[in-house]
Amino acid sequence: MAFQDATTAEIDISLKKSWQAFHEYRKYSLKQRSSFMKAIATELNDNAKKLVATAMSETNLPEARLQGELTRTIFQLNSYADAGEQGSWLEARIDTAIPTKSPPKPDIRKMLVPIGPVVVFGASNFPFAYSTAGGDTACALAAGCPVIVKAHPAHAQTSELAAQAILSAAEKCKMPAGIFTHIHGSGFEVGKNLVMHACTKAVGFTGSFAGGKQLFDWANQRKEPIPVFSEMGSINPVFLLPEKLKQSAGEIAKMYVSSITLSVGQFCTNPGIIIGLENEDLEKFISLLSSEIRNIAPGTMLHPGIAKAFVEKRINALKQENVETLAVSEIEPKENQGIPTIASAPAAAFFKNPVLHQEVFGPYSIIIRCKNIEEMIEVAKNLEGQLTSTIMATENDILQNEPLVEAVKNICGRFILNGVPTGVEVCLSMQHGGPYPSTTDSRYTSVGADGIKRFARPIAFQNWTDNLLPDELKNSNPLNIWRTINNELTKEKV
Amino acid sequence: MAFQDATTAEIDISLKKSWQAFHEYRKYSLKQRSSFMKAIATELNDNAKKLVATAMSETNLPEARLQGELTRTIFQLNSYADAGEQGSWLEARIDTAIPTKSPPKPDIRKMLVPIGPVVVFGASNFPFAYSTAGGDTACALAAGCPVIVKAHPAHAQTSELAAQAILSAAEKCKMPAGIFTHIHGSGFEVGKNLVMHACTKAVGFTGSFAGGKQLFDWANQRKEPIPVFSEMGSINPVFLLPEKLKQSAGEIAKMYVSSITLSVGQFCTNPGIIIGLENEDLEKFISLLSSEIRNIAPGTMLHPGIAKAFVEKRINALKQENVETLAVSEIEPKENQGIPTIASAPAAAFFKNPVLHQEVFGPYSIIIRCKNIEEMIEVAKNLEGQLTSTIMATENDILQNEPLVEAVKNICGRFILNGVPTGVEVCLSMQHGGPYPSTTDSRYTSVGADGIKRFARPIAFQNWTDNLLPDELKNSNPLNIWRTINNELTKEKV
Repeated sequence: MAFQDATTAEIDISLKKSWQAFHEYRKYSLKQRSSFMKAIATELNDNAKKLVATAMSETNLPEARLQGELTRTIFQLNSYADAGEQGSWLEARIDTAIPTKSPPKPDIRKMLVPIGPVVVFGASNFPFAYSTAGGDTACALAAGCPVIVKAHPAHAQTSELAAQAILSAAEKCKMPAGIFTHIHGSGFEVGKNLVMHACTKAVGFTGSFAGGKQLFDWANQRKEPIPVFSEMGSINPVFLLPEKLKQSAGEIAKMYVSSITLSVGQFCTNPGIIIGLENEDLEKFISLLSSEIRNIAPGTMLHPGIAKAFVEKRINALKQENVETLAVSEIEPKENQGIPTIASAPAAAFFKNPVLHQEVFGPYSIIIRCKNIEEMIEVAKNLEGQLTSTIMATENDILQNEPLVEAVKNICGRFILNGVPTGVEVCLSMQHGGPYPSTTDSRYTSVGADGIKRFARPIAFQNWTDNLLPDELKNSNPLNIWRTINNELTKEKV
Repeated sequence: MAFQDATTAEIDISLKKSWQAFHEYRKYSLKQRSSFMKAIATELNDNAKKLVATAMSETNLPEARLQGELTRTIFQLNSYADAGEQGSWLEARIDTAIPTKSPPKPDIRKMLVPIGPVVVFGASNFPFAYSTAGGDTACALAAGCPVIVKAHPAHAQTSELAAQAILSAAEKCKMPAGIFTHIHGSGFEVGKNLVMHACTKAVGFTGSFAGGKQLFDWANQRKEPIPVFSEMGSINPVFLLPEKLKQSAGEIAKMYVSSITLSVGQFCTNPGIIIGLENEDLEKFISLLSSEIRNIAPGTMLHPGIAKAFVEKRINALKQENVETLAVSEIEPKENQGIPTIASAPAAAFFKNPVLHQEVFGPYSIIIRCKNIEEMIEVAKNLEGQLTSTIMATENDILQNEPLVEAVKNICGRFILNGVPTGVEVCLSMQHGGPYPSTTDSRYTSVGADGIKRFARPIAFQNWTDNLLPDELKNSNPLNIWRTINNELTKEKV
């Protein structure tokens, strides 16, 4: 089924409706927002079969993966709803008046309020969890913002079904008209019109660097620049420290062959580069990893465009000077399948050639061979900002290599010890975000309830009487939220 | 005394030193950072006489104002030091492992870490509190970031003295070389070089829209864009509601004549526009305000450039179509003095003419006469983003005019009831920041300890053993900070 691109006039009408809805929805209580989000979760659950079947037909993703992703999406909606209602994200601060001070200190109370309509771009690799009813939408609704989703054209029908679930929940919960808008668009004009519209106040995006950076640039060229949260992926470096590698080369090879090829390598946390010291332990690791990868079957990629890009980027990566192909899957690929591939290069080639720093979206990883720890540190310092960095190390490795550990920590948003970067837990402590170019704003996360704060800004109320204040800031603390009163964190009343 | 502009080569050397210092300073404990900040406060206090005398000679500000500002600067350093050490700003979150989950949930712990070297531009109107050792510097040091200050050329000698105080404290506290750098520059090249340098990771600025927007644009044109916190001022609208005005026209006139002319109107929170309903109460208010303003003596402005700009902007504002000059000070101005001035225009002129929305930096305010409440709402909706908005109202006024109150709230960072916008308390609940163009990032404040968070980003530690974690995240909570453990806020150990 084909959908028509929204016209400029349609987008203008939609955004104006969102703007109207914003002025209503932001007055809804935390409880009402939470109930709405939970109603969306229920609708998704009630329509799970149809959603999964439709997504299977559009994305080539297997049923178990999609069912898991839908479960995750429902969990996100429910858990962010709870976090939204619990209210710690509001960062409520109260300083009571000191009339005897000279000049008198007024009563001041601060909390986060919603920023305005949020445009969300669906992600190709997560048709549920980072698309229509995904993490960005859940965070924006929890913050009190209406949402405008641009469906990803590669799963527009799935997006349409998820949008229906949201609109059905909106009707049941008596949400204002315009609380949620679903827009189709295959060309870049639709995206540009959405970002440039005066009523748009923030943007959420998960996808390629080219796409995310373009949205960021448009947003900054507006008369009123707005925040853009583009999660643009990374190559997620893995540093193999010597003692650990000596002890566990086989175990690490097994862990990593799975991580590199999980979901045909189509995760933004895929480990795309592995850095080790050139010695016999690394040779052993390479040989084990290679023999494992030869037995991994190629998998069908999300859509033909992504399969084509993988073919091109993989060929390009492998033909670079001093890059050696270590092993490829020995199972014949079918159409649109990605071939699991391991390559290798010396650190000197990495320093010289920025192509080796780039993501190859798919089941691909390159091993960088360093002459010594100093070269490993240099690799860390030369890497761009990353969503994750991983260190495989014994305690002794860590204690002996503080400069390396510090350099690796400095470039990432999530810092993993003895694990794999794939698998992003939905919990408050998660940081899914990192220094540029992995995202456009390293100060925020796109996974976990802290993501709500992306779509809010603080406002201070000065000298307002108790009955005129929002419930969140009233003396009696009727919502029973945590607040900092005169520098003390408490749930007590004023 | 004249200072030479820093050369490109000097800036490069300085920033590289800052970058080195960053890797050391971020490992310093919260306690060490706090002690350093308090040592700066002590140095400033010990050199108060010389600092105030020098600032008097450079800025035309009177002694009492400068002494008050220095006291405020010392308070900022001490109170942000305490807040930094208390550690709530770290937003520590811990989710413990659930090995039985499928797949197993790893232990994840998150906290804010410093973002990197911060470039701070001194403000012309606050030689102490928003300059060399001012709020941005204090926040950056508390966050764990080295600071590079570009002195404001209008008080370069004062800035030099404050820098000496910081460097002297740095030496006493054994801070790493490069923790603080002081740079002079009168041309825009120095500012551009500082913002564009790869080692710069954030920028703090207080000043004009043209200056702040330019820094923002440069920062977004970098290979790696960085956050810019430009506080660019606003016209701080004041809405006079009818019942309140009927009751208290005289009292409001007295409050506002002081606020408009305080420090020769040279505050970014100066009330530059007052909106009321065209009726006899407003006429009474205008007549009282006018008779007050005629008796206020002109004051010498910060420097000849600002005095010249006030003359030009004031003349330009007064010559606009339908703008009526209501009253000016009847005391003859001396050279470089700003003449207290009140003008008036109908709402229709405000809607038509964007010049009437612009800040006239100095002792100037314009009264907008509206035919009805609907016009007042339209004025609110047509105003750009503001640091503050004020409503003068009885409880009845507020309850009867919800659409107006909501519209006014939506455009500002601080929302005042029955007060004046001038006077910015230094406390945690303060929001000094607001929607664009009052600042470039409405999500942060430049006053109060929440400003520390501007210069930090989250990092999640996954699967690290207790002894390898930073103290902030260790099981035993050795720093006794508030942390959210498995979604519960607590000071308990894990």
